[in-house]
Amino acid sequence: MPFIVIDGPPMKTVDQKRRMVEKLTEAAAEVYGYDRKIIHVIIRENEPANVGAGGRLIADIHAERESGS
Amino acid sequence: MPFIVIDGPPMKTVDQKRRMVEKLTEAAAEVYGYDRKIIHVIIRENEPANVGAGGRLIADIHAERESGS
Amino acid sequence: MPFIVIDGPPMKTVDQKRRMVEKLTEAAAEVYGYDRKIIHVIIRENEPANVGAGGRLIADIHAERESGS
Amino acid sequence: MPFIVIDGPPMKTVDQKRRMVEKLTEAAAEVYGYDRKIIHVIIRENEPANVGAGGRLIADIHAERESGS
Amino acid sequence: MPFIVIDGPPMKTVDQKRRMVEKLTEAAAEVYGYDRKIIHVIIRENEPANVGAGGRLIADIHAERESGS
Amino acid sequence: MPFIVIDGPPMKTVDQKRRMVEKLTEAAAEVYGYDRKIIHVIIRENEPANVGAGGRLIADIHAERESGS
Repeated sequence: MPFIVIDGPPMKTVDQKRRMVEKLTEAAAEVYGYDRKIIHVIIRENEPANVGAGGRLIADIHAERESGS
Repeated sequence: MPFIVIDGPPMKTVDQKRRMVEKLTEAAAEVYGYDRKIIHVIIRENEPANVGAGGRLIADIHAERESGS
Repeated sequence: MPFIVIDGPPMKTVDQKRRMVEKLTEAAAEVYGYDRKIIHVIIRENEPANVGAGGRLIADIHAERESGS
Repeated sequence: MPFIVIDGPPMKTVDQKRRMVEKLTEAAAEVYGYDRKIIHVIIRENEPANVGAGGRLIADIHAERESGS
Repeated sequence: MPFIVIDGPPMKTVDQKRRMVEKLTEAAAEVYGYDRKIIHVIIRENEPANVGAGGRLIADIHAERESGS
Repeated sequence: MPFIVIDGPPMKTVDQKRRMVEKLTEAAAEVYGYDRKIIHVIIRENEPANVGAGGRLIADIHAERESGS
């Protein structure tokens, strides 16, 4: 503890994940006033067909945007 | 926010996911009295070997049922 | 299983919670094609000082709105 | 989406929560390359009697530390 | 890591929470083959009005049972 | 309900998952004093590149350890 879970889209590279873990950990350590050693992060990557915003799948919102409609 | 996470089995089609997001969003928007635009949904698909009910894997419960035992 | 967790603001009445559980369960049962008996819901009520949107506390967004600024 | 949930101890002030939301949002927005507007944060405050580390309650670890044993 | 979150009803005593943390940690440590030092547990206590089973609030199921209906 | 989620590394065999579900369920049933039939478990398997401890990816900690540095 503390324990951060971030739910977002699939990430592109391991380096992007590395920076995410570094920066979230740093932010939490600073605000809590804790050593960063005790802070854990889990990144959850969610496919656009498994996430909805405003009642629509992100996959559908993307498809519509790409078709220019 | 609000933010709905549904943990269930793997889903069969994108259309099934689309209806899940639509219906959960509609339900939450109506009860909260919110615009559906601000409601988010995440669907988590869990393999039957990763879920337990009553101390047994869903995978084992399914296998037993199929073998007629 | 399935399990639905909804994170939102504090709710006003038990009846509102009752309708939330009913409607989310009904939605999930219908889309999965499951008996509603096996569907569980947890409502998490979050104080406006414990939620952020766009980098700001919901508590601050509300305060600003009420002050008319 | 994205959605960040941070589970930690009770926080001392609203200002500490404000900084937590700001800094986590900023970190995620920068690494994803997203506008911070779409990033949400939920802070969960957990009592020391509801958290365990290494098989012991945080409440017990604190009590032991304070008694100097 | 690993991290165990258990969502259940309000617990009666700190000692009950202590045993829950001990036993869940022991179980996970043994099955993973890990030192229990790295295992964390969070207990979430949910009011019966915030949980639904089969489309009904646990609070309502309890009330009905107590009234003998 | 109750409902246990365990976030850990990928597991090696279905039998390991079977024992995890058995043991966590047994632990929770005993401490709550509930029938194990109503207890559910979800195992989440997280890749070492998706988990951070102390601000570093588990994948990087493993790589460093294996290279003997």
